[in-house]
Amino acid sequence: VSSPLKKVVIFGVGLIGGSFALALKRAGAVRHVVGVGRRGLDAAVRLGVIDAVGAADAATLGDADLVLLATPVAQIETIMQAIASHLGADTVVTDAGSTKGDVAAAARRHLPGRLTHFVPGHPIAGGEKSGVSAAKADLFRGKRIVLTPLPENDECALQRVRDAWQSCGGVLSEMGADEHDRVFAAVSHLPHLLAFALVHDIAGRPNAEQLFGFAASGFRDFTRIASSHPEMWRDIAIANREALLGELDAYRAKLDALHDLLEQGDAPGLEAIFSAARESRDAWLKKQAN
Amino acid sequence: VSSPLKKVVIFGVGLIGGSFALALKRAGAVRHVVGVGRRGLDAAVRLGVIDAVGAADAATLGDADLVLLATPVAQIETIMQAIASHLGADTVVTDAGSTKGDVAAAARRHLPGRLTHFVPGHPIAGGEKSGVSAAKADLFRGKRIVLTPLPENDECALQRVRDAWQSCGGVLSEMGADEHDRVFAAVSHLPHLLAFALVHDIAGRPNAEQLFGFAASGFRDFTRIASSHPEMWRDIAIANREALLGELDAYRAKLDALHDLLEQGDAPGLEAIFSAARESRDAWLKKQAN
Repeated sequence: VSSPLKKVVIFGVGLIGGSFALALKRAGAVRHVVGVGRRGLDAAVRLGVIDAVGAADAATLGDADLVLLATPVAQIETIMQAIASHLGADTVVTDAGSTKGDVAAAARRHLPGRLTHFVPGHPIAGGEKSGVSAAKADLFRGKRIVLTPLPENDECALQRVRDAWQSCGGVLSEMGADEHDRVFAAVSHLPHLLAFALVHDIAGRPNAEQLFGFAASGFRDFTRIASSHPEMWRDIAIANREALLGELDAYRAKLDALHDLLEQGDAPGLEAIFSAARESRDAWLKKQAN
Repeated sequence: VSSPLKKVVIFGVGLIGGSFALALKRAGAVRHVVGVGRRGLDAAVRLGVIDAVGAADAATLGDADLVLLATPVAQIETIMQAIASHLGADTVVTDAGSTKGDVAAAARRHLPGRLTHFVPGHPIAGGEKSGVSAAKADLFRGKRIVLTPLPENDECALQRVRDAWQSCGGVLSEMGADEHDRVFAAVSHLPHLLAFALVHDIAGRPNAEQLFGFAASGFRDFTRIASSHPEMWRDIAIANREALLGELDAYRAKLDALHDLLEQGDAPGLEAIFSAARESRDAWLKKQAN
């Protein structure tokens, strides 16, 4: 067990940033948490999520052990620029963005002298609710945390980030930023795009009201992620455009194949795909339950 | 309030057929329920879901007020042929199939002399669990029940089917079979196809295990319906092929549009679609909650 961090600074004290603070505190892994951001900070202090409000300045950052960037991805570049000259020599910076290639590239642009101490990360946790009032100490318990270390990363800096997430109960993985972005294009970004597309398709029909009127629980669950934050998903789609286009192409090819089977009335062909899909999904669920 | 039905016969005492029996019994809307089928009947008697086991014969059907065909759709034609000559003059037959154009056509082929007394129906209820052990008296409470009456339907026969479903707590709608099949192609059959396609796509990758390993709750809910019964969905897809192909084409056009926006890096265009989808879905959920 490593000794507690003296000071952690969190940019963006919402669901993710706030839960990170609460989890570290509950684990006794931090002494002092400072929040920086455009909103929610008063509430965060009142709720005991953070101990103080800071700013992108030397007073806040010069003696910080760890800085988490947990704002929407679109703000990360601006924050990197703002903090670059105020970080302490030993301050480690990490982030919680859903895409990693763009964050690594931004770090190379704006924190070129700090690449030993910038460790990109992505906690696979969240929820439909956002904001600090939804934050909870066990949000990351048993959840996967993916780090995509830079080749330049200092081993101690990397270990500090690993330790922090482990204190939060996260299950750590490490991979390259490109690999991360391809994996999440497939299992997260594409499904979001598909759900948005279906709801948009239905909503644009002359008989949309009738259609929604007969939509049941299958439709509700299938489209749950279409209630996700539009700006956040716009940013993710743009940031991970290349991998997402590749996934979309693969999926369109699969739909073309289903279209042909359907057109030909190929019942065994359809059943083979449905059965294989069900088996794969059920095997996955079983593994998750273990 | 109409007087209780003396005798109801249910072909296929699974989740739907069994729940129909339990709901009618709880409402005091039936005196005697007979089950017919290939399996689950002993359990159904033991569980008190049905009172007796019957067969496709005159003893079972000659004095029945109402017959529900709740088997998989693929068996309905065979059952129609088997029961045609045994039905009583006043016996009303309905079904619970997910597609209605094919059921109406089958009735015209196999029950041509009984079209006054055959009322196609579709209860919008179900669940991942199937079989009589999953049956429950409140399965249809507040759920939509769509009837697609034939022009030939006798008004009293139609009213008997309406009354039965109302006793079960269902919320009745009526429309033509074609309209039904178009509506459900959009809000149910297409989403199932899309979910099966996504899981099949992922499962076929060399790194499928890694991909499933990072799939989270969004993926789980999006693909829940890909754990549905493959044979049942094969039959539905084939039975409603024409409408489903139309929906698939519309959806592919929507994906093509998203592909172009993404390729052009059109962030406002993507956000407009995501926002509109989210708003439509949230408005729908709000309406459902009221």
